[in-house]
Amino acid sequence: MESMAPSKLVTPGELADALGALRSSTPLVQCLTNTVVTNFTANVLLASGGSPAMVDVPGEAGDFAAVAAALLVNLGTPNSEQAAAMREAVAGASAASTPWVLDPVAVGSLRVRTALARELVAARPTVIRGNASEILALAGQAVGGRGVESTDSVAAATDAAGTLARESGAVVAVSGEADLVTDGVRTVFVHGGSALLTRITGGGCALGALCAAFLSTGGDPLVATVAAHAFYSAAAERAAATAAGPGTFAPLFLDALAAVSPAELGATAVLS
Amino acid sequence: MESMAPSKLVTPGELADALGALRSSTPLVQCLTNTVVTNFTANVLLASGGSPAMVDVPGEAGDFAAVAAALLVNLGTPNSEQAAAMREAVAGASAASTPWVLDPVAVGSLRVRTALARELVAARPTVIRGNASEILALAGQAVGGRGVESTDSVAAATDAAGTLARESGAVVAVSGEADLVTDGVRTVFVHGGSALLTRITGGGCALGALCAAFLSTGGDPLVATVAAHAFYSAAAERAAATAAGPGTFAPLFLDALAAVSPAELGATAVLS
Amino acid sequence: MESMAPSKLVTPGELADALGALRSSTPLVQCLTNTVVTNFTANVLLASGGSPAMVDVPGEAGDFAAVAAALLVNLGTPNSEQAAAMREAVAGASAASTPWVLDPVAVGSLRVRTALARELVAARPTVIRGNASEILALAGQAVGGRGVESTDSVAAATDAAGTLARESGAVVAVSGEADLVTDGVRTVFVHGGSALLTRITGGGCALGALCAAFLSTGGDPLVATVAAHAFYSAAAERAAATAAGPGTFAPLFLDALAAVSPAELGATAVLS
Repeated sequence: MESMAPSKLVTPGELADALGALRSSTPLVQCLTNTVVTNFTANVLLASGGSPAMVDVPGEAGDFAAVAAALLVNLGTPNSEQAAAMREAVAGASAASTPWVLDPVAVGSLRVRTALARELVAARPTVIRGNASEILALAGQAVGGRGVESTDSVAAATDAAGTLARESGAVVAVSGEADLVTDGVRTVFVHGGSALLTRITGGGCALGALCAAFLSTGGDPLVATVAAHAFYSAAAERAAATAAGPGTFAPLFLDALAAVSPAELGATAVLS
Repeated sequence: MESMAPSKLVTPGELADALGALRSSTPLVQCLTNTVVTNFTANVLLASGGSPAMVDVPGEAGDFAAVAAALLVNLGTPNSEQAAAMREAVAGASAASTPWVLDPVAVGSLRVRTALARELVAARPTVIRGNASEILALAGQAVGGRGVESTDSVAAATDAAGTLARESGAVVAVSGEADLVTDGVRTVFVHGGSALLTRITGGGCALGALCAAFLSTGGDPLVATVAAHAFYSAAAERAAATAAGPGTFAPLFLDALAAVSPAELGATAVLS
Repeated sequence: MESMAPSKLVTPGELADALGALRSSTPLVQCLTNTVVTNFTANVLLASGGSPAMVDVPGEAGDFAAVAAALLVNLGTPNSEQAAAMREAVAGASAASTPWVLDPVAVGSLRVRTALARELVAARPTVIRGNASEILALAGQAVGGRGVESTDSVAAATDAAGTLARESGAVVAVSGEADLVTDGVRTVFVHGGSALLTRITGGGCALGALCAAFLSTGGDPLVATVAAHAFYSAAAERAAATAAGPGTFAPLFLDALAAVSPAELGATAVLS
């Protein structure tokens, strides 16, 4: 379970280096994501230093995944044409060794996305990111949350996350008050952030895109995923300090994503 | 016609109770809405105290409507797959007695949505919310407005709203300088608000989602719909007081939706 | 190439008159655009003084294009149903002489949109607006940029823009540090603006919608397109003066679009 002993698995220097690598490479991140959060997701990537490209139509998605630096597949509103494009994109990414992130939004009782999520897990994503209920459902240990909301705690999903990581070969990240990141052997908790991220839509979805951006810089997927979460939390804390509510939080959060430096990230992140 | 005598149909205490009930239940509100306003609509629900879920694909929409606390069907950009999902969702809502709101965006001369709107009215929505031109068109008394804009006044739509309410069994709400809410027998006007709501996209569409959120708490649909409109107006007034234009109004409005308390709503709403 | 000698092709008075005409007519601008930027595009039009209508489903798009004041066709996420609606809309616009803008987002190597863009260019858009890589690709002189980003300078696209304008009959606009607008004979550069427009999504896409809004007021398409770019740059500069990053820039930019007056536009625009 969670402990506050500083993590020895990921160092401050590794966090700073990961953000520095993202900023210097401006990675081209392909996103097939839901209609609710496309705009916010693209703005999160742009503010952070990435280059978003929402190429999500069949006939293009696979070709593009082969040249993109990383790929996000988010199952929030999977209409049939986008689902076909997701299959193409995952095949293209796999063939070209493009790292990719699966965000299994609201899997569990919803039939279309749950079947699609299981199919895509079998295609071996680099990272799976979700809330506790989604990870439990994907691991076959629960029937899902309440819509897009989690009804389970991160602590309750710790074992499921480890099992899912070992079975799928993916790094699994579970968002919550403290975020858990595990590859099935190593587990890191990322502390901090702001509850305001749960009061705006896309707070979790855009984090999936940022995981993809960090993965694009190469290196250990566990470190990249931890860095994405720590960076997101640092920016959220900075924005929450001056926000007057969820509405003003969103633009301040984008400003903060653009402003947090590698050194600040290394100095302020709290891992255990 | 409109009169400023305080309404005896809905009391300040009822408004406060309605908002209190919404805040304490965090209702799961399913939205099938247009691609322009999905993000803003979700953020309005989150800021107000609801939990949005944009489940709008066939094979899922009907199942979800049976478990959701309320449903919004907004016809702004009804592609064929979403239209199929709307039919599923309405059937699921009807079977499970989930209250639902129909927002007939730009009905009148546009063929696809106008036919779909008439079909959905026959499925007996709990509430129909639109601008004056949309309500006149749906009542068969005009050919619609100018795109998504109303070319008619609320006063001109008063009779049509009453007729539509009696024929459909729905509470009918007409947005304008003062908003009209009627069940065909009782009619309430909600005053206040801000013209800035007409300078941002989704100002009307998100109100439909909020009507659904208030309906979810049970009780009289007329009271719930009046409360949604009064709450929306109160938040808009608060935001407009410090906004420097339509751009800064939007985040301030979301902050205000999160900040307006039940007591403040009861104390400041102006009904007639 | 670029020169700083004041343009004699478009006068300050013509810029001011163009914005005045837009503000007094509140043009109904139909947009078939990508899922990432629909909301921002609609808000840009509303803030500037237009009336957006995202009518993009088959069976409606053509009818609406015949009554709209102007049309935008943006190829950012062209799913099959929207692509069919685009063909309908262009046919409707052509039959009714509705001016229309083509924004060939990310054309080049992406197959679906590239084929569609070539087909639509043959239907004779009034204006083609893109970044340098898109214009070079559409002119057959390059294979496109990096996703939605340009990898070419405006200077490198000057000849291609002129050729494309002469062959297509369209005014061609190329966005960059200074924007180029040409009809194949006359060429104007619009200076100013802000790099923050490249740090938010939709910075280019919404400009295409604004070109359509200015075209709707009649007159010389070259002047209208220059006016749209000059107005956009003026608002961006005003917003950038107080923005703390890309997040706060976006709402301030919308405020600025609402605030810049015809006189201010005429007095501050820098053309060459």
